Amino acid sequence: MTCQSKVAVSPKVTSSFVQDVQAIVGKSNVSTADAVRQQHGHDESYHSTEPPDIVAFAESVDHVSQVARLCNYHGVPLIPFGSGTGLEGGVNAVQGGLCLDVSKMKNILSVNAEDFDCSVESGVTRVQLNNYLRDTGLWFPIDPGADASLCGMCATSASGTNAVRYGTMRENVMNLEVVLADGRVINTAGAGRRTKKTSAGYNLTNLFVGSEGTLGIITKATLRLQGIPEATISATCHFPDVQSAVDTTVQVLQCGIPMARIEFLDEVSIDACNKFSHLDLKVAPSLFFEFHGAEAGLENQTKVVAELVKMNGGSEFRWATDVDERNHLWKARHEILWACMALKPGSKPYSTDVCVPISNLPQVVVRTKQMITEAGIIGPMVGHVGDGNFHVFFPVHYDDHVTLKKVHDVSHKMSLIALELNGTCTGEHGIGIGKRDLLVQEIGAEGLAVMRQLKDTLDPKGIMNPGKVFF
Amino acid sequence: MTCQSKVAVSPKVTSSFVQDVQAIVGKSNVSTADAVRQQHGHDESYHSTEPPDIVAFAESVDHVSQVARLCNYHGVPLIPFGSGTGLEGGVNAVQGGLCLDVSKMKNILSVNAEDFDCSVESGVTRVQLNNYLRDTGLWFPIDPGADASLCGMCATSASGTNAVRYGTMRENVMNLEVVLADGRVINTAGAGRRTKKTSAGYNLTNLFVGSEGTLGIITKATLRLQGIPEATISATCHFPDVQSAVDTTVQVLQCGIPMARIEFLDEVSIDACNKFSHLDLKVAPSLFFEFHGAEAGLENQTKVVAELVKMNGGSEFRWATDVDERNHLWKARHEILWACMALKPGSKPYSTDVCVPISNLPQVVVRTKQMITEAGIIGPMVGHVGDGNFHVFFPVHYDDHVTLKKVHDVSHKMSLIALELNGTCTGEHGIGIGKRDLLVQEIGAEGLAVMRQLKDTLDPKGIMNPGKVFF
Repeated sequence: MTCQSKVAVSPKVTSSFVQDVQAIVGKSNVSTADAVRQQHGHDESYHSTEPPDIVAFAESVDHVSQVARLCNYHGVPLIPFGSGTGLEGGVNAVQGGLCLDVSKMKNILSVNAEDFDCSVESGVTRVQLNNYLRDTGLWFPIDPGADASLCGMCATSASGTNAVRYGTMRENVMNLEVVLADGRVINTAGAGRRTKKTSAGYNLTNLFVGSEGTLGIITKATLRLQGIPEATISATCHFPDVQSAVDTTVQVLQCGIPMARIEFLDEVSIDACNKFSHLDLKVAPSLFFEFHGAEAGLENQTKVVAELVKMNGGSEFRWATDVDERNHLWKARHEILWACMALKPGSKPYSTDVCVPISNLPQVVVRTKQMITEAGIIGPMVGHVGDGNFHVFFPVHYDDHVTLKKVHDVSHKMSLIALELNGTCTGEHGIGIGKRDLLVQEIGAEGLAVMRQLKDTLDPKGIMNPGKVFF
Repeated sequence: MTCQSKVAVSPKVTSSFVQDVQAIVGKSNVSTADAVRQQHGHDESYHSTEPPDIVAFAESVDHVSQVARLCNYHGVPLIPFGSGTGLEGGVNAVQGGLCLDVSKMKNILSVNAEDFDCSVESGVTRVQLNNYLRDTGLWFPIDPGADASLCGMCATSASGTNAVRYGTMRENVMNLEVVLADGRVINTAGAGRRTKKTSAGYNLTNLFVGSEGTLGIITKATLRLQGIPEATISATCHFPDVQSAVDTTVQVLQCGIPMARIEFLDEVSIDACNKFSHLDLKVAPSLFFEFHGAEAGLENQTKVVAELVKMNGGSEFRWATDVDERNHLWKARHEILWACMALKPGSKPYSTDVCVPISNLPQVVVRTKQMITEAGIIGPMVGHVGDGNFHVFFPVHYDDHVTLKKVHDVSHKMSLIALELNGTCTGEHGIGIGKRDLLVQEIGAEGLAVMRQLKDTLDPKGIMNPGKVFF
């Protein structure tokens, strides 16, 4: 979030171009003010701010389509902007151009309670939707932590703590309305379609999920909803080491227990949580569990899990059955990024994530921890352990280039270890700017060439969020 | 399966081409014999046999790659063949060419029990895998009925009775090795990667899942496995009408009960089942349930479901708790295609499927039933009701063109009704030859143009399974 303001705007963004944009979205929806451009030039990652030349606010799919057509005609980079809560620099305007902010498109278009689905415009956020759904007995479970826009979550293939039970965005999007680079508007599964499954033609929906704005702009999403569980129980426990926490997780999954959440926190994270969120948890590698279901069924589930924890040398469960206690616990888990920052006053987050087959998780955690110790930096580790996915939240001062370099190195090596262990360099943050070099190592030159071919087909002039995913 | 043998082979399939194929896969792995060509010219659908000019059997990915390169060079159509159990004519060689049979590639390459995954070659079937897994406590739950090859199931985005709990192929494939039209070999998620989730680059995996052999040949699949549930209980019950059966299903899902199977059978199907599989079920619209889980939890689940059934005017549960009884019941469900054929001696199946939002299911079922009655044909209906997906298995004599025309008409109108009700013309059988005209109505011209662009990009000479999905 450090600011390296560009003085000059791109020669393509002429005053006549600005007027054309104003004619489409209205004068009040266009800004070239430095503050607005700066604000739209970064997300919540460590990547330096790269402001766009111009910011436009869309109020309809027609706005988006016309702006895309204009940008395509002039070859002006077009960067979609939802809530700005990404973690890999996805909105940074690395080649300048037009940032199209869709946050004003905030309509929840439909909720079909009997069909467990809803359709939302680009700017609708996760919390907005769940507040709206409150009386229906339904909820949208994917929860990446931040109150991200749902279409942004589609674009980045977000997931989070509930993914072990409910899947990621890939499994929960039924249809997308997308504006392509040339202004064409498509519905990936056909207009109005909202079936739980289909085998009609290519799966365009999941081509756009995770495409990070490089193939088109998502203007509407039809999403699967879930019934709010009858009962929810949370519990924590601690372990002598990482291996025993992971062994427990594997065994819980093998028993087919439909866990809603299994989160791993290392001792540094627990310490940060205790200090920041006023908890008094034992400072040791720990698991946070959440069980969803019918009350009678849960009792048995918790019993089985408690036995498995014990078998692996874990502690007694510490329960959080009432809502206040549970909320306090998960609020602490959700605030962990800020708790980690508080370990180093004045710092900002450098967060990274990898994902590996779960049996390889102890190895990557132990080796990463060793690198962190050797580098003499602070790196609390938190994992969606049921998915083999974990994060390190490094607190850094962005002007401390020596530490920043060390953090970069550890983060990069951690990705390489994940790749060595059949894993991915990013389980849920995406490639963005920061992991483009790792993508080729992960996918291989042939696979990456195919991705590039698809990009060139749908965006031949390369205007869609250039400089992201690919070099 | 009627034979309309082609006398002449394509002029592109010269004797020198045949020799080149022999040089790649070995002489014994090539056949131009009429019987072999006929056998490879159809699947289990009503579509007339269209034999390829030549059949080659691949024994390795290298064979597949070299054959693809050769076909691409000469512009010879290339049709992948797994188990031949498709239902929309996916293997029929409508433009002649080379059929590449991959059923000899039968190695189960790895099973990672702790990680709940495995990798299999093209020819490995569902039953083969589950037999192999028997001692691991794991299973692969996707079950389309036929003992299909798993890579074929990837290619057609198969699903079946367990999809309501475990998803379709789209949710259960982690990585694919694919040979492209020009012989390039890619791994959609990168070689050796097997993570539960990833957000690295485009989701190539799900671009190939459901592409029906038109984008490439799948030579290896890495699949998610599930723990075998501690306990399984089955039950049936009957209802006064379709609406009450569907209402029950919606309420069961709203309660968040993780049903393994909820199958709807209309009274015609029940009658067929009774006669063919020696059951004595009440001839009325019915639901077949299957519960998977820990014993203690199941008791509560079945209690809740039984109450909901009663509330909606359904009958008492008829239980099948022991293995033999349960197997008998589900064997009857799986044999239903043949049971329906037995309603009309000497007939063969014409099966079709559509999928709609579950609240629209009663309407499409009732309207279809009315059309069937008006047309004076037999059309038993069976549905994966939890997914809003249902089938009609029309028994027909393929030489009875009058009845065949009536069946075509009803099947087509049923798809149009599904499309009118926010549905899809195929939930799990695919587009193949038979539903290409419906695809454009479903997706829209703009969306279909994008699919076509992707096809042209990856297969510029149009050799991959031509005449399928698109005209």
